Amino acid sequence: MFEAREFVENALEEIMKTVGESRVISACSGGVDSTVATFLVHKAVGEHLIAVFIDDGLRREGEPEFVMRTLKSLGIRARLVDAKEEFFDVFRGKTDAEDKRKAFRDRFYKTFGKVSKEEKIEFVTQGTIKADVLETVQGIKSQHNVLEQIGINPEVYGYKILEPLRELFKPDVRKVARELGLPKEISERMPFPGPALSLRVLGEVTPEKVSIVRKATKIVEEETRELGTFQNLAVLHNDKATGIKNGKRVYGNIVTIRIVESEDAVTAKAAQIPYEILMGIAKRITGEIPSVVRCLYDVTDKPPATIEFE
Amino acid sequence: MFEAREFVENALEEIMKTVGESRVISACSGGVDSTVATFLVHKAVGEHLIAVFIDDGLRREGEPEFVMRTLKSLGIRARLVDAKEEFFDVFRGKTDAEDKRKAFRDRFYKTFGKVSKEEKIEFVTQGTIKADVLETVQGIKSQHNVLEQIGINPEVYGYKILEPLRELFKPDVRKVARELGLPKEISERMPFPGPALSLRVLGEVTPEKVSIVRKATKIVEEETRELGTFQNLAVLHNDKATGIKNGKRVYGNIVTIRIVESEDAVTAKAAQIPYEILMGIAKRITGEIPSVVRCLYDVTDKPPATIEFE
Repeated sequence: MFEAREFVENALEEIMKTVGESRVISACSGGVDSTVATFLVHKAVGEHLIAVFIDDGLRREGEPEFVMRTLKSLGIRARLVDAKEEFFDVFRGKTDAEDKRKAFRDRFYKTFGKVSKEEKIEFVTQGTIKADVLETVQGIKSQHNVLEQIGINPEVYGYKILEPLRELFKPDVRKVARELGLPKEISERMPFPGPALSLRVLGEVTPEKVSIVRKATKIVEEETRELGTFQNLAVLHNDKATGIKNGKRVYGNIVTIRIVESEDAVTAKAAQIPYEILMGIAKRITGEIPSVVRCLYDVTDKPPATIEFE
Repeated sequence: MFEAREFVENALEEIMKTVGESRVISACSGGVDSTVATFLVHKAVGEHLIAVFIDDGLRREGEPEFVMRTLKSLGIRARLVDAKEEFFDVFRGKTDAEDKRKAFRDRFYKTFGKVSKEEKIEFVTQGTIKADVLETVQGIKSQHNVLEQIGINPEVYGYKILEPLRELFKPDVRKVARELGLPKEISERMPFPGPALSLRVLGEVTPEKVSIVRKATKIVEEETRELGTFQNLAVLHNDKATGIKNGKRVYGNIVTIRIVESEDAVTAKAAQIPYEILMGIAKRITGEIPSVVRCLYDVTDKPPATIEFE
């Protein structure tokens, strides 16, 4: 049985001992993992921590404002970095899922590395959890080693990594969040991937396509809030399909709705949500987003599918 | 109230009067519309009719054999034309839905025109029904005028068109089929589009992609036979998505399952079929077709979607 209080006490002590009087940086996306890691370090070292929210232009509606507001209300020193243009630049012409992930990661670490240097830090905190580690071993996802990817040789610069959650599974991270008294919007927050909406735009990622999937995401989240499912999302296809709008045949966009039940994201079940809700979402998406003519529902478990499409 | 017997009597008389001692050709796809039209003309003019099945390589599993067997068992003079290679040739490099439809149509009428000349015919029969005519008027589909598209000037060659079903909606065509004593596999046959599986392969149509969607189609049809729905189909996306097969992350194919309720195909409802059946289909498709990692279910009505994807 996992004891959140005991975990927190040990973690704080460990972080204090490790960090001492050094400076720490944390890239906080607003997800439960990175926010819990950030808050733990903040509790341990206070003003020695700087939290950074990198606005890559791929976040959900209202997300940058929400994260900055939350960090500030928790008393955490925080900085917003507007990097929208440089992220969209690296996606230009890239259509393969792996190429896009790599482009995102490279750009993320370049931006994060630049900010880390500006802030003259010695430690980097990240919200790595057990599932990330396991999936690396199994070859499902490529786990990032922060230092190497920032392009910093730890021998020379002495940067060190803090991963206070690497032994926890998601449900335990949520227990820690509750134990720490974090707001419910954080402790119960649905998982959201690092590369954000870039994974939910198939084919090339452009501001226009992100804007479509952002609207669809908002509708899916609004309509499924009460379901208690693990993750609820929308994906914009690169493929198009025929439809009829205002009595005319058009060639329009396709959006997939994905709702899964899971404990820890390692496996997942496609949720059997009532058709009434599903078709209500489809009606809103095709009604409120002019270019979308068709909504699909993903009925595949993980495995053989993954939760996200890329 | 539509009277099938009366309709048949009038139609036979009309066809006999019109055709006289001339020769007639009919392109029979095995669908209820073209088979009823073919059989009506056969009853009216017997050996003056030649039915042609064009094997374009885009048909469902076992379809060419089924159609030829059916025509022969009905006593209809029939000829199979193997045109698989020439159809795949015209799809090369074409990814736009309209371009693909046009390529199919051009190729179809070239092949059909060549056979018509060989057979020295004066009349062309087709199974045009009321919904086709209505949708042309509304601009949803482009209706084909056979003669122009064969590239034959009727003034010069004197070819004429027979469309015995153009005043009927689909349910009445089925009544006529029953009245004519056609086998149930024909009278209750699910609608299937002229351009066949080419509409169900998004992006470029290749033999490999058709082979995947053919397998998925067979599974969907087998698992939904008892539902009594109007049309049950599978679509292969051009987009790919991540999945996990044999414990490894792969980038695989996406198949959409589409099942609709409709009277006449002019409007349609996405069917609310039990999740158990839906997920059983998804398991079979991802299990039996190695490249497929993900199955989606189309939850959009017509309008705003169409029944087919292209």
